[in-house]
Amino acid sequence: MKPINLNEKLAQFGSHWDPHVVADYNDNDVMVVKFQGEFPFHLHEDTDDFFLVLDGEMIMDLEEESHLVKTGELFVVPKGITHRPRAAHECKVLLIEPKGEPNTGDPATAAPKPRI
Amino acid sequence: MKPINLNEKLAQFGSHWDPHVVADYNDNDVMVVKFQGEFPFHLHEDTDDFFLVLDGEMIMDLEEESHLVKTGELFVVPKGITHRPRAAHECKVLLIEPKGEPNTGDPATAAPKPRI
Repeated sequence: MKPINLNEKLAQFGSHWDPHVVADYNDNDVMVVKFQGEFPFHLHEDTDDFFLVLDGEMIMDLEEESHLVKTGELFVVPKGITHRPRAAHECKVLLIEPKGEPNTGDPATAAPKPRI
Repeated sequence: MKPINLNEKLAQFGSHWDPHVVADYNDNDVMVVKFQGEFPFHLHEDTDDFFLVLDGEMIMDLEEESHLVKTGELFVVPKGITHRPRAAHECKVLLIEPKGEPNTGDPATAAPKPRI
C-alpha cells in the first residue's frame, strides 16, 4: 500500500496503445497508457470502459458521433458500444477495465497489460 | 455519453467530505469530492476504495502508517483496511466506490452522494 505517481509510471515506457497496470481496484486493472494515432474500432460486450485524460487530448469516435476529450476530462464508454480512441499527438490516459478484459475487445489482438 | 470535465463538476459545490457522482463505471459510482480536515477512521469490508488526487494533497492514515498523496497520485485502500483521509488544505479527489457503498463504511453516517 503506497501512493502511485502516475507521471512516474508513464515515464517508464514510450510505446503507444500499450496499457500498463499500476494498481488493482477490486477485480479491475487500473492502468496508464499513451495514445497516439488511431486504435481499431471495437467494443466490450460485458463491461464499460473508463478513460481519464491525464495529459493531452484525444478523440473518442463512436459509431455516429465523436467527442473531444481533454486533460482532466473523463469518458466512460458503456458496455456494448462500438468506439475508437484516437489522438493526433501523444495523449496520456488512465484506463480502468476488469481484469482479463482484452483492450481490443478480442483476446487474439489484445495488448499484454504488463504491471509496472 | 459525453466527456465529463472534473473541474467543472468540482466548481458546482463547496462542501467537504461530500462526494458527488459524475459518472458510472459498471456497478461503481465515479465521484468527485473535496477533502479538508479529518475524516473518521473507517473501513469497507467488501470493497477496495479508490482515491486519485486531482489537486492539492492529502494524508492517508492507516492503522500503523501514514502516506502523503499528492496531485497526480493514486492510492487504493484494500478492502478491510482501516483508513482515514485528512487534508490540512482543500484537496480535490476522484473517488470510486461500488454503488450503494457508504463513504464512511456505515449507512448510518454516510453522505448522500448526489449526482451532478
